[in-house]
Amino acid sequence: MARRTKVYEGKAKILYEGPEPDTLVQYFKDDATAFNAEKREVIDGKGVLNNRLSEFFMVGLGQIGVPTHFIKRLNMREQLIRACEIIPLEIVVRNVAAGSMSKRLGIEEGTPLPRPIIEFCLKDDKLGDPLVTEEHIIAFNWASQQDLDDIVALSLRVNDFLSGCMLAVGIKLVDFKIEVGRVWDGDFQRLILADEISPDSCRLWDIETGKKLDKDVFRRDLGSLTDAYTEVARRLGVMPANSAPATKPHLIN
Amino acid sequence: MARRTKVYEGKAKILYEGPEPDTLVQYFKDDATAFNAEKREVIDGKGVLNNRLSEFFMVGLGQIGVPTHFIKRLNMREQLIRACEIIPLEIVVRNVAAGSMSKRLGIEEGTPLPRPIIEFCLKDDKLGDPLVTEEHIIAFNWASQQDLDDIVALSLRVNDFLSGCMLAVGIKLVDFKIEVGRVWDGDFQRLILADEISPDSCRLWDIETGKKLDKDVFRRDLGSLTDAYTEVARRLGVMPANSAPATKPHLIN
Repeated sequence: MARRTKVYEGKAKILYEGPEPDTLVQYFKDDATAFNAEKREVIDGKGVLNNRLSEFFMVGLGQIGVPTHFIKRLNMREQLIRACEIIPLEIVVRNVAAGSMSKRLGIEEGTPLPRPIIEFCLKDDKLGDPLVTEEHIIAFNWASQQDLDDIVALSLRVNDFLSGCMLAVGIKLVDFKIEVGRVWDGDFQRLILADEISPDSCRLWDIETGKKLDKDVFRRDLGSLTDAYTEVARRLGVMPANSAPATKPHLIN
Repeated sequence: MARRTKVYEGKAKILYEGPEPDTLVQYFKDDATAFNAEKREVIDGKGVLNNRLSEFFMVGLGQIGVPTHFIKRLNMREQLIRACEIIPLEIVVRNVAAGSMSKRLGIEEGTPLPRPIIEFCLKDDKLGDPLVTEEHIIAFNWASQQDLDDIVALSLRVNDFLSGCMLAVGIKLVDFKIEVGRVWDGDFQRLILADEISPDSCRLWDIETGKKLDKDVFRRDLGSLTDAYTEVARRLGVMPANSAPATKPHLIN
């Protein structure tokens, strides 16, 4: 295999040039980081689990008509994705107060929110991904008003779908973070879901016990992160050891 | 217990006056009917399963902010619901061609649709619930344009959520039917999800095997309807024999 060109390396993933124009290979690392990378560890198998879980959610979202960057899974750690221009925002959808919102606003963790609340943070590690308002976003041209309207609609659809997925397997979707990118079909610009959806980017609490099944297990030293992610995968029927690729068509005939 | 006043009896459910104003008790019968009641049978336990499953979906939808008529489950066969003025439409959301659409339009059953398609049928057994267009609905004042816009938005949210629920337990949501009703908060009218969501009102196909897990098992004599519905309930963790009521808050403190 020819040596590939690395396009970008983040905390948990690497992007390589893809085999076709406008494609990339997204590689899932085992690195776990928290508190803006002040806490670091290598968690054996995390990349494999997130590759499979992100595939599962992206394929499901594609089937209900939510456009995503996902094309196909290539192997245990890599998936082929559509290249896009990432909008420099972390889009957080919250159903229950937790994490930074609880701390920032003094709302006890676990308090249900009156409705899903969407927050935007500027994607900038050096600044610690600060919270920004729509005013900031439009004034600094990180996204247009139309982009924001589209992002809100897309984020709420992802929330509805993921809430259903999780409820069906006894898990409460507390919050999640997504990223969105621009692609062009000729002159026509569209936004697509990018990055990943995995227990790295969601808060997932067991409905019966309240047990955390997400990256907070690592952030707060609550036990084995691999066990938690494996539990999510097992409940969803997404087994890393399963030889059947989850990319096969989820339709009859 | 005092004898209750029956308000309405349909093919699969009975409505009684509720204990409070603007409430009703919805009783799930074991009767199965198909082809506009030309085919009939009593299926032991179907009512119990549908009561539990409809509770599960309505509670989950309520948690993501979709307004429903569901208040609480009362016992094995009954749930307390909010009274509403039912809009006389059966709203069908289809992801895959099947049933009457396949027959009507000559599209092979199992063909994925380019996007979810919403159909409206007039709720009138004597006429066989005929397909109607938005033109008919507005001209005959069954619903306003604003109602229809709200119904479409609500139906697509239900589709996103239910698609996620089903995908998470290895089931393809092929299509489903809902009903919607009006309630008034003072002068302000709102639409809420009414009737039921259950394998009586959905088409559910196992993703791996294509096995039908819905009322088509009865319509087409494919085996035990109770086994099929029990399988859906079991996968979702909604066990009729389970003593834990599924109405308990699905949130952590």
